[in-house]
Amino acid sequence: MKLLLINPNTTQAMTDAIAVAARAVATPGTEIVAVQPSFGPVSIESHYDEAFAAAGVAEQVRLAAAWRPDAVVIACFGDPGLEAAREATEAPVLGIAEAAFHAAGMLATGFSVVTTLTRTCIMAERLLQRYGADQHCRGVHGTDIPVLDLEGCGVETLQQIEEAARDALARDRSGAIVLGCAGMAPLCATLSHRLGVPVIDGVAVAVKFAEALVGLGLRTSKHGDYAPPLPKPFVGWASGLRW
Amino acid sequence: MKLLLINPNTTQAMTDAIAVAARAVATPGTEIVAVQPSFGPVSIESHYDEAFAAAGVAEQVRLAAAWRPDAVVIACFGDPGLEAAREATEAPVLGIAEAAFHAAGMLATGFSVVTTLTRTCIMAERLLQRYGADQHCRGVHGTDIPVLDLEGCGVETLQQIEEAARDALARDRSGAIVLGCAGMAPLCATLSHRLGVPVIDGVAVAVKFAEALVGLGLRTSKHGDYAPPLPKPFVGWASGLRW
Amino acid sequence: MKLLLINPNTTQAMTDAIAVAARAVATPGTEIVAVQPSFGPVSIESHYDEAFAAAGVAEQVRLAAAWRPDAVVIACFGDPGLEAAREATEAPVLGIAEAAFHAAGMLATGFSVVTTLTRTCIMAERLLQRYGADQHCRGVHGTDIPVLDLEGCGVETLQQIEEAARDALARDRSGAIVLGCAGMAPLCATLSHRLGVPVIDGVAVAVKFAEALVGLGLRTSKHGDYAPPLPKPFVGWASGLRW
Amino acid sequence: MKLLLINPNTTQAMTDAIAVAARAVATPGTEIVAVQPSFGPVSIESHYDEAFAAAGVAEQVRLAAAWRPDAVVIACFGDPGLEAAREATEAPVLGIAEAAFHAAGMLATGFSVVTTLTRTCIMAERLLQRYGADQHCRGVHGTDIPVLDLEGCGVETLQQIEEAARDALARDRSGAIVLGCAGMAPLCATLSHRLGVPVIDGVAVAVKFAEALVGLGLRTSKHGDYAPPLPKPFVGWASGLRW
Amino acid sequence: MKLLLINPNTTQAMTDAIAVAARAVATPGTEIVAVQPSFGPVSIESHYDEAFAAAGVAEQVRLAAAWRPDAVVIACFGDPGLEAAREATEAPVLGIAEAAFHAAGMLATGFSVVTTLTRTCIMAERLLQRYGADQHCRGVHGTDIPVLDLEGCGVETLQQIEEAARDALARDRSGAIVLGCAGMAPLCATLSHRLGVPVIDGVAVAVKFAEALVGLGLRTSKHGDYAPPLPKPFVGWASGLRW
Amino acid sequence: MKLLLINPNTTQAMTDAIAVAARAVATPGTEIVAVQPSFGPVSIESHYDEAFAAAGVAEQVRLAAAWRPDAVVIACFGDPGLEAAREATEAPVLGIAEAAFHAAGMLATGFSVVTTLTRTCIMAERLLQRYGADQHCRGVHGTDIPVLDLEGCGVETLQQIEEAARDALARDRSGAIVLGCAGMAPLCATLSHRLGVPVIDGVAVAVKFAEALVGLGLRTSKHGDYAPPLPKPFVGWASGLRW
Repeated sequence: MKLLLINPNTTQAMTDAIAVAARAVATPGTEIVAVQPSFGPVSIESHYDEAFAAAGVAEQVRLAAAWRPDAVVIACFGDPGLEAAREATEAPVLGIAEAAFHAAGMLATGFSVVTTLTRTCIMAERLLQRYGADQHCRGVHGTDIPVLDLEGCGVETLQQIEEAARDALARDRSGAIVLGCAGMAPLCATLSHRLGVPVIDGVAVAVKFAEALVGLGLRTSKHGDYAPPLPKPFVGWASGLRW
Repeated sequence: MKLLLINPNTTQAMTDAIAVAARAVATPGTEIVAVQPSFGPVSIESHYDEAFAAAGVAEQVRLAAAWRPDAVVIACFGDPGLEAAREATEAPVLGIAEAAFHAAGMLATGFSVVTTLTRTCIMAERLLQRYGADQHCRGVHGTDIPVLDLEGCGVETLQQIEEAARDALARDRSGAIVLGCAGMAPLCATLSHRLGVPVIDGVAVAVKFAEALVGLGLRTSKHGDYAPPLPKPFVGWASGLRW
Repeated sequence: MKLLLINPNTTQAMTDAIAVAARAVATPGTEIVAVQPSFGPVSIESHYDEAFAAAGVAEQVRLAAAWRPDAVVIACFGDPGLEAAREATEAPVLGIAEAAFHAAGMLATGFSVVTTLTRTCIMAERLLQRYGADQHCRGVHGTDIPVLDLEGCGVETLQQIEEAARDALARDRSGAIVLGCAGMAPLCATLSHRLGVPVIDGVAVAVKFAEALVGLGLRTSKHGDYAPPLPKPFVGWASGLRW
Repeated sequence: MKLLLINPNTTQAMTDAIAVAARAVATPGTEIVAVQPSFGPVSIESHYDEAFAAAGVAEQVRLAAAWRPDAVVIACFGDPGLEAAREATEAPVLGIAEAAFHAAGMLATGFSVVTTLTRTCIMAERLLQRYGADQHCRGVHGTDIPVLDLEGCGVETLQQIEEAARDALARDRSGAIVLGCAGMAPLCATLSHRLGVPVIDGVAVAVKFAEALVGLGLRTSKHGDYAPPLPKPFVGWASGLRW
Repeated sequence: MKLLLINPNTTQAMTDAIAVAARAVATPGTEIVAVQPSFGPVSIESHYDEAFAAAGVAEQVRLAAAWRPDAVVIACFGDPGLEAAREATEAPVLGIAEAAFHAAGMLATGFSVVTTLTRTCIMAERLLQRYGADQHCRGVHGTDIPVLDLEGCGVETLQQIEEAARDALARDRSGAIVLGCAGMAPLCATLSHRLGVPVIDGVAVAVKFAEALVGLGLRTSKHGDYAPPLPKPFVGWASGLRW
Repeated sequence: MKLLLINPNTTQAMTDAIAVAARAVATPGTEIVAVQPSFGPVSIESHYDEAFAAAGVAEQVRLAAAWRPDAVVIACFGDPGLEAAREATEAPVLGIAEAAFHAAGMLATGFSVVTTLTRTCIMAERLLQRYGADQHCRGVHGTDIPVLDLEGCGVETLQQIEEAARDALARDRSGAIVLGCAGMAPLCATLSHRLGVPVIDGVAVAVKFAEALVGLGLRTSKHGDYAPPLPKPFVGWASGLRW
């Protein structure tokens, strides 16, 4: 199967790192095609950044129609463009926040999210509500580490995340940690080892859940709300992306 | 005061019609500056359309930074790009769905939404939850009238909407109707007259609520989640929109 | 337009102070008619006080039927008698808590309420749930300042409220403050200036939102739950208030 | 024990009928003291009516302070003045809606409410939310029988209520019926017999639950939100009711 | 009336202690028949323990079919087997958590639960949601006292519970305490006296509420979800318990 | 990997059929060990049945401790004993309802459940709430087909389920169907083909999601609520199952 892995920001190094993380967990038969939008911010740390990233995700799913991916994973914790992508393909589409929340709920009665900037906590909180996971999440915690600092993450940054996680486990009475940024994927194993609880990286879970759904022949419903977008004119730079 | 009125789709005739509706209710001192994105779909009838529209709203708010509008209204019932816009300006920003829901809740214990395509009901339902208005809304009803058919809306289309509204009032035990599309703004007075209940057009309410907030000197909070986006590189066609 | 401003308690000085605050924000064409019930407690700091105040609001709306106000504002943070008033008039009726919560939700992703006695927090919490604003409110904080101490509020009281607000912003990760008592209206500008975030006084917002709704010709729905009360005998002191 | 049974409307015949229903289920040692407010509407069928009724309940609890009842029951399905009453006495205070909802939840996984005027359904719905019973209630159904028509309820009225109940059981997939008006108390046994499901009259349940709480020595908490009202001047006809 | 009191664990001393507590509050005419399952754990402190206890409750209700109890009380704070028991008898069945939550909600606007092991808090939280009491409960607090240590509870253990309760009242702004274990029943009076707030023992409340329902002739609904189990083969040790 | 597949009822033919369905979707490396409790009902169609089944699941997980399965799937739509099983093993444990709900939420904005007896709808509704999937499920529909009639399901039964599903899609405005019984697993492909929407069989999804979690090295959290049960005596037939 071919899995379209979209990094919604425009930092090539991050796309590469996420692809490495995805390939590390993928089944041999799964080919990971990692892309990023042709436009937009180098990292996603605000609603403003996210508005561009969501359009970028839509762009990439639209462009991939040419080769019909079997599954799509959106590798940013805000799950930008998730619903647009589901309309734009018959393949199953997974957001890494959605996948991580569901996995966490299967492994612990309550979990905590450790994320980057505090100002992005609101995005995670909105998604928790959207996915019905708010009752299983006992806290969302910002570390105020900028997303791009996660690249080549040093000892100190790791330490900071570990401390935030320990704190969260104790204060929230949680049994698992969800990593609130695709850029934290490479830290997952280390943190899991140190903390002694399930540490959940959404990229990995989304890839495996996508494989699972594809393995069952399940596809995005085209009946109703996720039917293909109606064909209509698009103008400006987006004119090539019309349906 | 200068009010930036954004039509998130790219149909000039619709931008003009919405501007007319907005000016009809604005206070003499309010100057309405009506714009539309430089790109994207001619109407918004799916999540896919909306992903581009949200980026288009962000674009327009960003461009308006040059002249510092006193208020911003987003004139599409999905409130696309609302949160991005709130980060990108200190002016109050209102979505027409948000404004309409709150107004309806002040005038009736329960209301019904009458909208265009059935497939967009899910968007209204999500917004109702986001704004906490789900407990006041007793039903969202699609008419399957395409958005652009509302332009120069004939007798038949009006009839169809009226019937859907009557039906909703009876079935939902509702006391008011919320019009679920900016393109329905011109029908508001007629429908209100015929139905004998409050019929709420979000464009009109958003303009008046925006005037109200501006009149009080209230502005979007820059403390926390709506702080200005962090300055960072944007690439591709969006490079000019970086913060 | 004529706006009936009801102070639900029976302290004339407070009625006057609220009227001053309301007139300060009203449009020139808006005439504020400030009244208070002919009976009941001098301040509202318990459910017991509120039971009388709600009846007092009903009394005042009933008496105003003679001159048909264009809008009604109930100026106590518990919104006493709000639903009764909506039945008893065709004019839009706004409670200051309802108006403040909705305004706050338009300006910040989360807000905190700072109120008077801790025992009244439960009233605000109930209203937050009723209006669907509980998900936007991140905390309700009592200062244990008695309502009537707000009159001629000295430096110390102001200081105490400011501190409670600062505390709330930090602890709740909030972006705005809602003042939880009509008697705090005169402090709004000062607090806003000192705190650097939107500080929302419900009296001011309710007056402006009422003007907005009247400006749009919107009136309380008489279809269904807010239909006029059925005519029937009333006995005792209330006999003159029958419908 | 002495139980203060308050009929919140001012129809003596209804007070008497409710007292009969209460005495029929009370334990021999329970003395029922049935009262009604000295003012207000002869029946409660709107929020307007209810505003006066709630003050009337507060009046009666206040006046009863002289003889210290052991328990208080408020016999109107809107539970008017419930919280005020809880502040105004140390005795347990039960509303008949609250008691009926909880009893129904112990006897069936889902129940339906059959009430009088359709316009009062909203009151029951609000109470269901307040008490957390909304998830157990599968429908609130108005019969549009006026409250006072229940007095000396003829064969036809009974038939109408029975049909509404049968309809509700089938449509709502419910296992029990809650009677939505104190005036329906005398019909409870007949309906239960005919319908073959638990039919719950809040008056009866509230009396028995009140006896239960008194039997355990449990009293309304005076710590926090239900502490006695603060002593303060009351003006007008209410001046004698100050604390 | 004959009340079947089921201690879901298999510690005879605890069955006896709970029976003593139940008899202490029961009306003279109420005969308490206290039983325990023929199998399972000596105390219930995990979901694993509870799975056996729930089957044990089903066993005991099934065996009691021979003598047709008038009411059933399940005396473990997790209310194990509650729904099974309701199917297996026409008598009203009460869980002590359900009864305690409802009683607490009648006596205070908010309450706190003090329970045994912290790991069991999740069970109470689930029940609060199930019964709609989550909005009235302001905190669930583990003391990490093992259930069987409550037997012959010494001064120290009592002290520890008292401290946890005081803490909860202050931190949660609560007005009442719910004891989160049937084994705490004997401490109820002492704690109530020391804390000065209602302290609610579910065993006592469940017994009294059961008497109340029986007194009204109310029985578990056999229409719908609680209809008797369908007759079918059971195998293994459970073969005698088939319907 | 070794996957323990537990059929919670005691019908060997059903255990075999479920095992076939599970093996049909499992990865070659996955060995399915299918078991059933040594006691209890031959099908699970009531809470009473379920109480025994949950204990049966606990028994089987306990017995499997000897060979340490890598994952556990509970193949009954009520997810009986799920939490007990999670305590009793470090392997990930999936319930088929939980897995199906999450999968459905990834493929459609709203889904409907088609199940067996109407009286079991309440169990699905409770699980939807427990897993936060209630907002994605638009209806639970009973067909009143007994569970064991699904075995060797004839044309007529299939027809009946198909009709119920079509009905649900239309009435609920749903985009996917969740099969509400493990016994329906063999019908999944046919129904999916006929209905043209995703039809989700929880057995298949749970097996694949279990493989996914095992593939990532994720295990049930032993920190907090799912820590191993405390060692303590068990009596009666269960004495061998103590920890």
